[in-house]
Amino acid sequence: MKIGVLTSGGDCPGLNAVIRGAVLKGTEAYDMEFVGIRDGWKGLVEADFFPLTRRDVKGLSKVGGTILGTSRTNPYEGDRGGAENIAKTLYGHKLDGIIAIGGEGTLAAAQRLNNDGIPVLGVPKTIDNDLRATDYSFGFDTAVNIATDAMDRLRTTGDSHQRCMVAEVMGRHVGWIALHSGMAAGAHIICIPEVPLSLEEITEHVLAAAERGRAPLVVVAEGFTLKGQSEAYSDKGLDAFNRPRLGGISEVLAPLIEQATGIETRSTVLGHIQRGGAPSGFDRVLATRLGLHAADAVVDGAWGQMVAMQGTDIVRVPFEEALGELHTVPLSRYEEAAALFG
Amino acid sequence: MKIGVLTSGGDCPGLNAVIRGAVLKGTEAYDMEFVGIRDGWKGLVEADFFPLTRRDVKGLSKVGGTILGTSRTNPYEGDRGGAENIAKTLYGHKLDGIIAIGGEGTLAAAQRLNNDGIPVLGVPKTIDNDLRATDYSFGFDTAVNIATDAMDRLRTTGDSHQRCMVAEVMGRHVGWIALHSGMAAGAHIICIPEVPLSLEEITEHVLAAAERGRAPLVVVAEGFTLKGQSEAYSDKGLDAFNRPRLGGISEVLAPLIEQATGIETRSTVLGHIQRGGAPSGFDRVLATRLGLHAADAVVDGAWGQMVAMQGTDIVRVPFEEALGELHTVPLSRYEEAAALFG
Amino acid sequence: MKIGVLTSGGDCPGLNAVIRGAVLKGTEAYDMEFVGIRDGWKGLVEADFFPLTRRDVKGLSKVGGTILGTSRTNPYEGDRGGAENIAKTLYGHKLDGIIAIGGEGTLAAAQRLNNDGIPVLGVPKTIDNDLRATDYSFGFDTAVNIATDAMDRLRTTGDSHQRCMVAEVMGRHVGWIALHSGMAAGAHIICIPEVPLSLEEITEHVLAAAERGRAPLVVVAEGFTLKGQSEAYSDKGLDAFNRPRLGGISEVLAPLIEQATGIETRSTVLGHIQRGGAPSGFDRVLATRLGLHAADAVVDGAWGQMVAMQGTDIVRVPFEEALGELHTVPLSRYEEAAALFG
Amino acid sequence: MKIGVLTSGGDCPGLNAVIRGAVLKGTEAYDMEFVGIRDGWKGLVEADFFPLTRRDVKGLSKVGGTILGTSRTNPYEGDRGGAENIAKTLYGHKLDGIIAIGGEGTLAAAQRLNNDGIPVLGVPKTIDNDLRATDYSFGFDTAVNIATDAMDRLRTTGDSHQRCMVAEVMGRHVGWIALHSGMAAGAHIICIPEVPLSLEEITEHVLAAAERGRAPLVVVAEGFTLKGQSEAYSDKGLDAFNRPRLGGISEVLAPLIEQATGIETRSTVLGHIQRGGAPSGFDRVLATRLGLHAADAVVDGAWGQMVAMQGTDIVRVPFEEALGELHTVPLSRYEEAAALFG
Repeated sequence: MKIGVLTSGGDCPGLNAVIRGAVLKGTEAYDMEFVGIRDGWKGLVEADFFPLTRRDVKGLSKVGGTILGTSRTNPYEGDRGGAENIAKTLYGHKLDGIIAIGGEGTLAAAQRLNNDGIPVLGVPKTIDNDLRATDYSFGFDTAVNIATDAMDRLRTTGDSHQRCMVAEVMGRHVGWIALHSGMAAGAHIICIPEVPLSLEEITEHVLAAAERGRAPLVVVAEGFTLKGQSEAYSDKGLDAFNRPRLGGISEVLAPLIEQATGIETRSTVLGHIQRGGAPSGFDRVLATRLGLHAADAVVDGAWGQMVAMQGTDIVRVPFEEALGELHTVPLSRYEEAAALFG
Repeated sequence: MKIGVLTSGGDCPGLNAVIRGAVLKGTEAYDMEFVGIRDGWKGLVEADFFPLTRRDVKGLSKVGGTILGTSRTNPYEGDRGGAENIAKTLYGHKLDGIIAIGGEGTLAAAQRLNNDGIPVLGVPKTIDNDLRATDYSFGFDTAVNIATDAMDRLRTTGDSHQRCMVAEVMGRHVGWIALHSGMAAGAHIICIPEVPLSLEEITEHVLAAAERGRAPLVVVAEGFTLKGQSEAYSDKGLDAFNRPRLGGISEVLAPLIEQATGIETRSTVLGHIQRGGAPSGFDRVLATRLGLHAADAVVDGAWGQMVAMQGTDIVRVPFEEALGELHTVPLSRYEEAAALFG
Repeated sequence: MKIGVLTSGGDCPGLNAVIRGAVLKGTEAYDMEFVGIRDGWKGLVEADFFPLTRRDVKGLSKVGGTILGTSRTNPYEGDRGGAENIAKTLYGHKLDGIIAIGGEGTLAAAQRLNNDGIPVLGVPKTIDNDLRATDYSFGFDTAVNIATDAMDRLRTTGDSHQRCMVAEVMGRHVGWIALHSGMAAGAHIICIPEVPLSLEEITEHVLAAAERGRAPLVVVAEGFTLKGQSEAYSDKGLDAFNRPRLGGISEVLAPLIEQATGIETRSTVLGHIQRGGAPSGFDRVLATRLGLHAADAVVDGAWGQMVAMQGTDIVRVPFEEALGELHTVPLSRYEEAAALFG
Repeated sequence: MKIGVLTSGGDCPGLNAVIRGAVLKGTEAYDMEFVGIRDGWKGLVEADFFPLTRRDVKGLSKVGGTILGTSRTNPYEGDRGGAENIAKTLYGHKLDGIIAIGGEGTLAAAQRLNNDGIPVLGVPKTIDNDLRATDYSFGFDTAVNIATDAMDRLRTTGDSHQRCMVAEVMGRHVGWIALHSGMAAGAHIICIPEVPLSLEEITEHVLAAAERGRAPLVVVAEGFTLKGQSEAYSDKGLDAFNRPRLGGISEVLAPLIEQATGIETRSTVLGHIQRGGAPSGFDRVLATRLGLHAADAVVDGAWGQMVAMQGTDIVRVPFEEALGELHTVPLSRYEEAAALFG
């Protein structure tokens, strides 16, 4: 068998470990051959391939990013030719199928291609942990560790200056990173997209923490919106002072909190550092296992499915189970954490 | 309600996060009162208590070790008076029950005490991840991260000197830390207690890695025994050169590997650094959640059970489900990893 | 002797290690007594003191921030009473002198107070490394490590997406953090306040790196200004797109680079995480030694001086040698690093 | 000009950064050509060379170990032919000189070769920091950081179990790593080769710390010998219990301390993890600067010298200034630290 591998969407610690796992298992156990597809669907559309051997994946489990490159190209858009073009490419290069590593968008394209006759196996990749049908996805644990470590650092500054620190983490649609890093770092309030809060609800916790002599730590996911008040602003693309909004939500929140509480408040947008660099042990193991099982699934002809983690097992689930609805933070998990806010 | 909390057995990153979680939830949501019990069962036997308030647990989620102290005392041994003595103490101090955070031995004592009428709730603690009925236990993820990071470092020395490096990790009876850190670091062979290997089986992988131009990395759990050959030695408490065995198994293996392969080989025993220091994000969240749910379980009168993680849920399981047999690495998981050895 | 200790200005990893060093040496070797002064000069002006014993400083060498609190209060401003008020306070509390740990502003106030008869010894604190008369100041090494680590992470994202990454680090007036972290992380161009560059000079290096197949890394100190073009903007408080400038210089630079080169460009402002958390080994040793020598200097009556690091020695220098002119990056050091830009 | 580069002796974080610095400066500024020499002097003796271009050194500043490989071969030993053989090789390959990166032994060979007419420039490499004429050498700072981090972890275990922890660090002949990491981690006693201590002197500090409620931390360099008592043992190659000595000095000390104090005591030998992995920011900058200046020195024909760090400057010193006597810890520095032991 000859299989193409691609990574698509935003980069994520663990992508290389998946590639390595699949190539090692495929070549050693099943005598498969692999080609790397450059820059996601783009490389598949343009037949931009290169050989991927055991030698090419050595030492990769600890390396962040993706050696395949990535992009946000959709194979069905524009004059890219969709499934028909890709079918020709597979035939021309004698490829038996594709392992596509990516998130919601990538897997939706994978599903459509698979329905159109292209054999595609999916591997879930979402640093935000927003895919259903997998307990965790690789990259998330690394992001939580980086965010937690950063918050530990912010707290010493907060404590020294008796300031309120606002830390903004990734999570445009779901609040998993904020929830976990906020719990880990001992946040006094966590603001996530799933649970709109008013400024008053936030400042109540800020003031309570300050009264107990603590430097308040506010953790906010980038996709959070303030109940009522800020919707007006964000509708207009304005920040709290009616200026065009450039930075993150934390840069909106910080001055509002300072104004409302009288406590000096500073914001930090953690940004891209959350998604780069060496994966954590957890993510290396998870990603490697997904890669190993992807090779198994390909041999079994399990096209149209993705490998996933449930409990401590790696399982296969049809694309439709994973797609459609995002895996958001359930209210029960938010309320569980809220017991810590004080 | 007034509840005593104790930590018992070896220390483990996350203990303080459990204590904090239970105290915050208990005091805020249920108006419970807590006392800290010093040094495990010893403090319970000797009524060595101190108040544990919200103030005492502040900032604890990131602090390694246990503010309660710990010991390996068994409340039933010697003249400690077993359940009868403890019952008097609880009555005298108006304690309604005990939250006992510990491993196999601690929970076995907890079960026996509970059967003898002492209300005890368990929280599983095992850095080795050797308890059944919980997918993971806190401390394990931190240990894997520390071991993985150490192995990343060892590899650069191995590569520069074309040496074989042997890294010894914790795991007297189970090989989970070795399995996960070895997978994460790209080990060429992983030696765990569950899977005895002969020296030949090990050196085969060492030589294969060297032939591919890699510096071989051997990961070994402290409880591993060499098939055949070394049993003779370890029966006599001798190492490979017939000297009294002082250090770890890696110090036995390294010279044997060097002798058999002709490749210069060095061993490192990671030792106590694996169990100390700040917990990882994963462990802080897991430990905190176990603490929160421990408070809930106490309110529900769920004595004789322990809180546990299954999938992404925190559940309650009776002591008997967790105890008895250790949670060893199943052969399927070892074979899964073996596909990477090459 | 009875000595007050204060920390003033922005917090910095190592402040607590200085305090610990001074208190341990002073109490053990010289039988001195210490009081902590809360929140910098503010606490001195308001006589906000608390006892500072061996017990209070235990375990502090690794703790970021300052247990004394800090502020930016100037003792000569407003109705604070200047030296006269402070002299009364010292007399009233039987304080023989002050150890003031702080930067340019703090030491300038210390100098003036000392000239006005208040015995003050200085300890240099500047995370930016902008003080003369000391080779390094504590906090700087930690900040460089944090920034370097963050840039290592940003690079994997840059490589995966073939993006240009712009990393903004601290340094309002001097570029030491940018210079060192940029050298350490392999930046393709480093932008510092001391060396104005035009957009063309920057993009030349960005394009050269991209042509060699690298993802360009631009490191910029917060105080950098673009030659010509951007001065117009920053004069008006506008960013490159004529919008009010909210974020850092990197948020101005990134779109300009993208526009000029056609390479997708992202910026990250590292912000407050650079100044918090546990100090590096280097900073703990430096800060501890400064603290130890501060106690010696006080005993010797070396008022009006500050302790400093020169080579591997801790020396004493009069305030006037350290103050006045900032310790900027000399052109020779910039040119040395520029050899790496390619 | 065509220059060969070799690394010799034990590996050390920063070696690759030196190589990168020299190659980038040499090729870009001076149009030099470089060849890599494999495995230290061995590769020079055997003419085992490979081209070293800008492309080969990309991304190397953060990579531990050495891409050139290393060994402990002495070019004058056996039938290796000494300077005469090497002169022929240089002539045959049109090499104009050698940059030799190594420690005491390497530089001594370099000096002899240089005296025998082979143009050699030295770059000091000693993780132990034991070379004179340079304030610091790269690798040392990284080792101190790793050791300090490990000790921070050991302390939480010590505190939880009320144990004495003994941490053994590198330093066969000099105690710099022990001194700095011990100061950084707050050791209660530091044992270095330069300052023999009796068991009583050690246990006095252990007991004092325990009495103050602290878990004693003993830091010991591998080359430390116990005054009196243990010399008898180590003469015979025996440990404290008269068994053949296999492990490090900490494994001798720990049971002696436990016996003498009654405090449970555990030892950890940090071993090889201290010398591997990514260099710290400080070491990357230092190593890169040494590499840059090595290229300058070669162009200037400064053979027979080594580049070195003095204060914040990179200077050139003749081999004889660096060699002969080791750079040991002066008593004044030990006494400075001893003020912290309590």
